[in-house]
Amino acid sequence: MSKFVTRTERIYWGDCDPAGIIYFPRYFDMLDRSTTAMFEQALGMTKIQFLKAYKFHGYPMVDIRARFIRTTTFGDEVVIETAVPEFKRSSFNISHRILKNGEVAVECSETRVWVTKDPNDPDKITPTPVPLEITGKFARLRQ
Amino acid sequence: MSKFVTRTERIYWGDCDPAGIIYFPRYFDMLDRSTTAMFEQALGMTKIQFLKAYKFHGYPMVDIRARFIRTTTFGDEVVIETAVPEFKRSSFNISHRILKNGEVAVECSETRVWVTKDPNDPDKITPTPVPLEITGKFARLRQ
Amino acid sequence: MSKFVTRTERIYWGDCDPAGIIYFPRYFDMLDRSTTAMFEQALGMTKIQFLKAYKFHGYPMVDIRARFIRTTTFGDEVVIETAVPEFKRSSFNISHRILKNGEVAVECSETRVWVTKDPNDPDKITPTPVPLEITGKFARLRQ
Amino acid sequence: MSKFVTRTERIYWGDCDPAGIIYFPRYFDMLDRSTTAMFEQALGMTKIQFLKAYKFHGYPMVDIRARFIRTTTFGDEVVIETAVPEFKRSSFNISHRILKNGEVAVECSETRVWVTKDPNDPDKITPTPVPLEITGKFARLRQ
Repeated sequence: MSKFVTRTERIYWGDCDPAGIIYFPRYFDMLDRSTTAMFEQALGMTKIQFLKAYKFHGYPMVDIRARFIRTTTFGDEVVIETAVPEFKRSSFNISHRILKNGEVAVECSETRVWVTKDPNDPDKITPTPVPLEITGKFARLRQ
Repeated sequence: MSKFVTRTERIYWGDCDPAGIIYFPRYFDMLDRSTTAMFEQALGMTKIQFLKAYKFHGYPMVDIRARFIRTTTFGDEVVIETAVPEFKRSSFNISHRILKNGEVAVECSETRVWVTKDPNDPDKITPTPVPLEITGKFARLRQ
Repeated sequence: MSKFVTRTERIYWGDCDPAGIIYFPRYFDMLDRSTTAMFEQALGMTKIQFLKAYKFHGYPMVDIRARFIRTTTFGDEVVIETAVPEFKRSSFNISHRILKNGEVAVECSETRVWVTKDPNDPDKITPTPVPLEITGKFARLRQ
Repeated sequence: MSKFVTRTERIYWGDCDPAGIIYFPRYFDMLDRSTTAMFEQALGMTKIQFLKAYKFHGYPMVDIRARFIRTTTFGDEVVIETAVPEFKRSSFNISHRILKNGEVAVECSETRVWVTKDPNDPDKITPTPVPLEITGKFARLRQ
């Protein structure tokens, strides 16, 4: 994994369940924040800015796979590493790893799709090719 | 409290914290669902429909007060009672009670404001008088 | 998929993001509730009861895969179908489908592990064979 | 307010609702993290450590009041200020303020109660006087 963005998060009391360990859906909140952080860093804009700049409507999840290898609990500090995404035409794959004390706690790969509002029905969203300007910025990051 | 809408919810594992009781912010998710249910029932439309029908942008919270009297835990079934709101010009008050086995577990009163998009700046929201058609529907419910 | 437990849930305002569609981690809350419902129905006990009855400490997730096929939004009512789990020694697989208007919106398969508190270190949890009494109850459901 | 702990948090996409602003229950997650941070800083231990050190079972919320003065949205960075708590015998009051660009967005005051497991019924929790060692540490912080 060619690590690109690294963030640190802390697991909190409210993220944990009666077994005293993290309630797994909370990991997906963390990873969604890392996906945003990756785009923000590559594009040099906040999400609210790049949604406007590129006139798109988000990148909803279409496929996700996660393996939970070590448990984490409140008070743990974890490191989240996110790789440069691999772009298809209107979708892209992202890989994340969550580490605790340097060991992998969670591995995740996700596929998202770039969408805009459907011009014929503003209540619908429709996949759209990722702008070349964006894939180009990430391509330069790989080199 | 002139009870108007009554809903039943169940407390789940993922709503509870390492102490084994509900993590209090989850109550506010429940109460927000009851506020929606109250409007839906009074207006005979789903929220997505009445947002469009009345061209408004929501009713964000401006003031909330809650007392937590009895604890609840996963597996508990609670009853949520919500009173008919009291309307001011562009705000309204709502009272809720959450009951467990017939005894009050939570009491909450909230003040929300009716907002529309600011015509001069679509990124801003601005308070707007609640339409008379809406306050009228609730007034009939009180009688 | 041999459907076993079917539940209905509603997508709420607070489950949705600024794109106006469900924020995907919320689906995992729904599916976790279905996994609980499945055990509760098969064992005839609530989760808090069967945790005690079988002296175990939960069934944390070890692997999850989900595909998001159709978007859902607030006001949508979805049906969640969960199959009878397939047991290995101390782990089991569960399949879920979320349907909207009869069409599949989400498919998910998960692997969880049956754990107890480590007798040598009460702060640790350790995988344990699923009790035969439990696998037996599910085996009878398959027939 | 005698500010004691100051933390910075960022509002994320997943914290916001279809109106594009923060969904208010998410503020209570932030404030709960600040309450934990305040105890951790005063006691020089993480929450998991001080729960054990003082053999208690948490400090559930009994009363909360919040005013929402300015809206926040994804990409906003907010500062959360938390005052030294005021202790009663087995309860305590905490005040928080959330600031955006130096202006108050949210004011909150909460009352929590110090609880231990009921010695006669391990499924119940019961209020207990806050240990003098703890109130003493905070008293020194006020001076």
